[in-house]
Amino acid sequence: MGAPTPPTERTQAIVATFPAKENHTPGSNWSLQDVNVATTLTDGELLVEMLATGICHSDLSLTSSPRMPYPRIAGHEGAGHIKTLGPNMANKELKVGDPVLLSFMHCGKCPYCLKGRPSQCVAFMANLPGRPGVFSSAKGEDGEGTSGEDIIGGFFGQSSFARLSVVQESCVVPAKDLVKDDQELKLFSPLGCGYQTGAGAVLNIAKPSKEASIVVAGLGGVGLAAIMAAKIVNCKEIIGLDRLPSRMQICKDLGATHSIDTSSITDLSKTMKDAANGGRGPDFFIDTTGAPAVLEAGFQALAPGGTMVFIGADMNPANGWAPDYRPVMSRSLKLIGCVEGDSEPAKFVPELVKYYREGRFPIDKMTQYYKAADFKTALHDMHSGDAIKAVLEW
Amino acid sequence: MGAPTPPTERTQAIVATFPAKENHTPGSNWSLQDVNVATTLTDGELLVEMLATGICHSDLSLTSSPRMPYPRIAGHEGAGHIKTLGPNMANKELKVGDPVLLSFMHCGKCPYCLKGRPSQCVAFMANLPGRPGVFSSAKGEDGEGTSGEDIIGGFFGQSSFARLSVVQESCVVPAKDLVKDDQELKLFSPLGCGYQTGAGAVLNIAKPSKEASIVVAGLGGVGLAAIMAAKIVNCKEIIGLDRLPSRMQICKDLGATHSIDTSSITDLSKTMKDAANGGRGPDFFIDTTGAPAVLEAGFQALAPGGTMVFIGADMNPANGWAPDYRPVMSRSLKLIGCVEGDSEPAKFVPELVKYYREGRFPIDKMTQYYKAADFKTALHDMHSGDAIKAVLEW
Repeated sequence: MGAPTPPTERTQAIVATFPAKENHTPGSNWSLQDVNVATTLTDGELLVEMLATGICHSDLSLTSSPRMPYPRIAGHEGAGHIKTLGPNMANKELKVGDPVLLSFMHCGKCPYCLKGRPSQCVAFMANLPGRPGVFSSAKGEDGEGTSGEDIIGGFFGQSSFARLSVVQESCVVPAKDLVKDDQELKLFSPLGCGYQTGAGAVLNIAKPSKEASIVVAGLGGVGLAAIMAAKIVNCKEIIGLDRLPSRMQICKDLGATHSIDTSSITDLSKTMKDAANGGRGPDFFIDTTGAPAVLEAGFQALAPGGTMVFIGADMNPANGWAPDYRPVMSRSLKLIGCVEGDSEPAKFVPELVKYYREGRFPIDKMTQYYKAADFKTALHDMHSGDAIKAVLEW
Repeated sequence: MGAPTPPTERTQAIVATFPAKENHTPGSNWSLQDVNVATTLTDGELLVEMLATGICHSDLSLTSSPRMPYPRIAGHEGAGHIKTLGPNMANKELKVGDPVLLSFMHCGKCPYCLKGRPSQCVAFMANLPGRPGVFSSAKGEDGEGTSGEDIIGGFFGQSSFARLSVVQESCVVPAKDLVKDDQELKLFSPLGCGYQTGAGAVLNIAKPSKEASIVVAGLGGVGLAAIMAAKIVNCKEIIGLDRLPSRMQICKDLGATHSIDTSSITDLSKTMKDAANGGRGPDFFIDTTGAPAVLEAGFQALAPGGTMVFIGADMNPANGWAPDYRPVMSRSLKLIGCVEGDSEPAKFVPELVKYYREGRFPIDKMTQYYKAADFKTALHDMHSGDAIKAVLEW
């Protein structure tokens, strides 16, 4: 007799297979499939029935790298309801049926977690690869496909590109007191990653004064969250920069005082410098693009004592950018890395919800919903710029 | 009739001539000479009779560059007494005979000066080249040498390697209420540059908590001032690092909890990481060396969320160091440039004097005095490591 098969439940998920070695198009290896999810929970795990999951560029980059294990299920901006609580939950208030927002996994015990900096958790990198033993393949109702092959789950402790998933408690932001209804729960799904990252880059890391001039490069969901945060501070000059002309209006609607359409200018650095502080350049440059030319232009444009915050990164080794330390020194600059906006999600997500209710963080203006089955349309719209923040509904 | 010669006064100064193009040894182009100093003052200028001037490495590097004008007089850690006040001094309390400490020149009107960040003054770079019209050559008493040739003065608004010099008021830290006697005035001469830079890197820029682990690389006057400042904060771990074995004891005497002799180890980064935070690496790495290998080792050793402060720089273009922004991002690091410790000298120098009186900034343990005529011995001792901070007496 073989070992008994652990109990599973059938669900649907977006599964990423090994990316094509040449000319891989991010997301081209995704497909919606029937899968089985293991329902035997260990300490501090929950089963969450997803209602919606935001798509973040990290979902694409981390399913495009040949160094990751495959097949795998991404998704790390999940929102849903608790279906089952595992043993020994730290938060005894959580109940089956409660709405939850999902963020990133952290150990809760290291010095960084203990001082409220979970994005610096010594185990943060465990968010990226995920782990085996969560999902397995299931034959489709038509009998197609394989059965029982392991599929990697646990991406950011949640793999929320699945209708039903196993979630680590450290990801969970309890939302019972945050949301009025399911529609809000969907809207808030990206708070746990993209929106907290952009807003946190400004409110937790850059911390500009209202006299400051700030440039935000790249006006996707993260960049526009940074624009809204700069408006919350009421910075003197808030300059949005993107290569999509369509983003010029939305960034102004959300609080930008100026916008720069990089598709139509020749000297980006000079344009930024001229636009900020009467020609002295910006005090803050928040980069979400990871584009070397944009990084260099921002670096050159910064005012004396200025601060550059790195949010976006192109992980292709060929697309690096490395500033010499000597102008950093002589110009009294600060270069700061940003992961998840240096946020403590359990505190910062509720703060962002408060700003939303006050009309100061109007994320409803930048969110578009797609059925999970239509994820390819969502990816197309993200790529074309028609969608700023795409949220999949399960 | 030609134009009347403006009035001058004969004095002595260390004059630097154009550096040898090949294998220039810093300081080898310095000589003590008789010179004439112009005594007609314009708005906001003073004549100061120097009592002592600290020697800083910038005096050497900025008289070794072929891009500077020559002949020139360096010196930017001056201390002396006011001999003559020019017209329209901003500080009406200054009197002839008052003791003064000298720091760097700043415009006082730009946004950075106005917000108390004079080291980011838009005109800061004017400190470096100096200006003509201050000094001129004088035949020696033996009739040797030329007469009337212009010598560049105004280095850091002071060119204090001269017994008598023209000083810009913005350099002046009034010292009447700070010093008890001339011996203290001599001792305090480096406060306006080297000591405020090292102490300010810690107290004004890094701002560690007492739970922090901090490494200071390079234990000259600047680095040891940083060690003392870390001790003022009472950081949990204070790690001094130098290639001179003789600096291991002095850094411990001044507050270091550990010391690393780089002349006797093979893996500097691992040694630092192992020594700090139980193997997680230091929270702060303060570099005064500008040595690429030391910078790289510190960068690799830093704990998650750690901060690197750049104080020292090797301006040889071949000796750069340029970290890629992606590990800065993924490790949530901060890289910060430091000029003059981000100090406002009129406030920070008195604060450092207070610490000195409390026994918490014992600069007397690291200062050696030399007659100005013996400056070559001072340079030799700085180079060999026998002197930490050399101060010339006029």
